Amino acid sequence: MANGTTNPRRRLDPGARRDQLLALGLDLIKTRPFDQLLIDEVIAAAGISKGLLFHYFPSKRDFQVKLMEAAAGELLAAIEPDPDADVLTQLHQGLEAYIGYIERNPAAYIAIVRGAGSDDALLEVFEGTRDRIVELIVGRIVAAGLVVDANPLLRLAARGFIASVEESTILWLRERPCSREELVQLFLRAAYQLAPMVNDISASPS
Amino acid sequence: MANGTTNPRRRLDPGARRDQLLALGLDLIKTRPFDQLLIDEVIAAAGISKGLLFHYFPSKRDFQVKLMEAAAGELLAAIEPDPDADVLTQLHQGLEAYIGYIERNPAAYIAIVRGAGSDDALLEVFEGTRDRIVELIVGRIVAAGLVVDANPLLRLAARGFIASVEESTILWLRERPCSREELVQLFLRAAYQLAPMVNDISASPS
Repeated sequence: MANGTTNPRRRLDPGARRDQLLALGLDLIKTRPFDQLLIDEVIAAAGISKGLLFHYFPSKRDFQVKLMEAAAGELLAAIEPDPDADVLTQLHQGLEAYIGYIERNPAAYIAIVRGAGSDDALLEVFEGTRDRIVELIVGRIVAAGLVVDANPLLRLAARGFIASVEESTILWLRERPCSREELVQLFLRAAYQLAPMVNDISASPS
Repeated sequence: MANGTTNPRRRLDPGARRDQLLALGLDLIKTRPFDQLLIDEVIAAAGISKGLLFHYFPSKRDFQVKLMEAAAGELLAAIEPDPDADVLTQLHQGLEAYIGYIERNPAAYIAIVRGAGSDDALLEVFEGTRDRIVELIVGRIVAAGLVVDANPLLRLAARGFIASVEESTILWLRERPCSREELVQLFLRAAYQLAPMVNDISASPS
């Protein structure tokens, strides 16, 4: 192929080189943790010097954050709902896509969910991704008229739902305690409860 | 008081000194993150040398792990259910105790839930604590006859539930988007669904 980006040793313009380094890192981060070995492999595959990597990404941590952002962007793109489908179909499709993404990229997913730890920049990527997914779910539920409005309780419940999906999926990947279909059914049933629970609590005298 | 453990500068036997250092650290970790300043304060409050701290705890990380274990132990003791109560009362009491513990010790809680990150020893404390709470919930649900047995799907659902409680509580602490009672009601309703969801999926033809 004549396309310059497929030949790592060619001189690339800065934007293309940066994208190439991220793409190489993203391939590697999908199957294993971020560490020095991964960085060394990216440098070797790109045929560049260590110094050049740090020209594009000021530090190891910065490169890690950018890789996490790229992985999170892929996940968000994968679960983007079909705008013409009804809310239950969107939910089902979104969950299937979510689990499918994680099955293909277990290390990237676990790195996003567990790896953030107390690192503020990584935590921001992680929280930002969760927020986007919460907005997606809340937006669909409100658009379908299942709750009166996007009240704070719905947002709180949706955030809890996302956390339960993350946690259960990590456990499922590790131990496979049930079938994939049972996992999807568990999440679907929990999601179906979000709007009724919130409506019920909102309607209760406090 | 004549009790030696109340006077930090007295010569203590090794077990008592270790307990004293953990108790001092546990007080501090409840309101702020684990860092060098916290270690320095523990050393100053105990009136010991830095070398002596590292005699009891081989490394900073080891001290941090032991503090997390102590904080997790406190949380587990706080939510221990009344054995004579019915399962719904146990659940309600457990959730109230859980939220109450977190309200009193926000930093310790956030450190347990978020701080583990990719540190294996801290992650083990965190996972171990979650496992204990899952066993507590699964045990109560099974004992109350709400499901046929402790099947893997119930464990998976209970783990997801715990994760959702953690996540929503952290968000609630930070933003207070609803009343405490609404938060409890949200968790109770989600917990009530655990057994029916699992029974329903187990009964479905797969």
